[in-house]
Amino acid sequence: MKQNIYDNPTFFKEYTSLRESGLTYNDFLEQPAMKTAIGDINGMLILDLGCGMGDLSKYCADNGAVSVIAVDISEKMIERAKEENSDKKVEYLCQPIEDIELPAESFDLVISSLAIHYIADYFALIAKISKLLKEGGRLIFTTEHPITTAQKEMKGWVKGDKGEILHWPVDNYQEEGQRKEHWYVDGVIKYHRTVSTLINVLTEHGLTVEKVEEPLPTKEGLKKLPKLINEYRKPPFILIQSKKS
Amino acid sequence: MKQNIYDNPTFFKEYTSLRESGLTYNDFLEQPAMKTAIGDINGMLILDLGCGMGDLSKYCADNGAVSVIAVDISEKMIERAKEENSDKKVEYLCQPIEDIELPAESFDLVISSLAIHYIADYFALIAKISKLLKEGGRLIFTTEHPITTAQKEMKGWVKGDKGEILHWPVDNYQEEGQRKEHWYVDGVIKYHRTVSTLINVLTEHGLTVEKVEEPLPTKEGLKKLPKLINEYRKPPFILIQSKKS
Repeated sequence: MKQNIYDNPTFFKEYTSLRESGLTYNDFLEQPAMKTAIGDINGMLILDLGCGMGDLSKYCADNGAVSVIAVDISEKMIERAKEENSDKKVEYLCQPIEDIELPAESFDLVISSLAIHYIADYFALIAKISKLLKEGGRLIFTTEHPITTAQKEMKGWVKGDKGEILHWPVDNYQEEGQRKEHWYVDGVIKYHRTVSTLINVLTEHGLTVEKVEEPLPTKEGLKKLPKLINEYRKPPFILIQSKKS
Repeated sequence: MKQNIYDNPTFFKEYTSLRESGLTYNDFLEQPAMKTAIGDINGMLILDLGCGMGDLSKYCADNGAVSVIAVDISEKMIERAKEENSDKKVEYLCQPIEDIELPAESFDLVISSLAIHYIADYFALIAKISKLLKEGGRLIFTTEHPITTAQKEMKGWVKGDKGEILHWPVDNYQEEGQRKEHWYVDGVIKYHRTVSTLINVLTEHGLTVEKVEEPLPTKEGLKKLPKLINEYRKPPFILIQSKKS
């Protein structure tokens, strides 16, 4: 049974209200890093895995992509994407990203923003993505950083008596697999994978790692959302760019 | 001024006595991982950077390497290497590994065991290594894991009231640079680098990342040195294998 937390009404309400604030990690850290990594996409056929409300798919359409297939498991998210980010170049599909069936070697670029940590079978997903990419095509994704997901009981920062942050606790690093977290609702399931797994599964499927990033907040972000300064202390996400060769 | 902690008499005495115990991380975790990664070295010209007492250089000579140039900054280490691991195929050189001057494209394999975290200028070192490698040659190295080196005040595991390990503290992750640690003597200097820096500097110098490992203890190690079980909780080293292409 694939998790579809974004269709939980409580979660959806809280999540969309966070996104609408315009004051999130996505706005000031993850999306800027993704857009820089994506670079020039003129003329490209793009697949967006875990497209959510479709912002990045729409960005691709607006910036020269020929077509974007955008996939998400959540009906509510796809509905919202169609309302807010409709574009004749973007086709929204509601299905689990692991289940996509599309012709081999169809895409110049596969992107995935903070979705892969929800996927149980990373190996199978990367195998599928590698087949879908054209020769020379790229996979660029962000996922929660292994430092962030390692600990089994995810309690967040360790704080001192006055509530000040002391450090981030790492434990259970080598034990990959399911982690449960409270994020608006109980039991949000994520999957912890080590740095080595994230990288080696790519190279095992013919994808050459071009760049790894541990994105930092933008200057604007640090002004508008001061708590982003903590992201210098421990990386929230990792971005990996690889090329089929 | 390059650090030469291994020539400090107190440090050298403690370190050699640890190594002689045969009960170290090197024996049960780092060296097994390096030897597996090195694989078949028959007929190869090898450069060993930070060779210490020469065990790995001698291993290469014993396993088919045609010649090994083994470099270390410490006179005491090189002296010991010549006593214990002398071999007509191995040439020991006492100098800082950053300062080596050897003909370009001379080596099939460059290895470096737990030395690179002592080097201030990783970029310059990798540039040099990339030039020294033949086309298709490999660089395989281990270095302290960024999770391990991140915190500025290196205090080790956070423990509970009864001395039990609670977790490993991560802080200052994005602030690369010098870290001081007490290891037998005060002020042992290491350099913290992020995962992205460790990888991107390789790809920027024409080295394709083939494999990343976060080595686990061997079964024998877990029996003989039970505290190695903690290495499942937090990785001590990272091993990166790359190829000049």
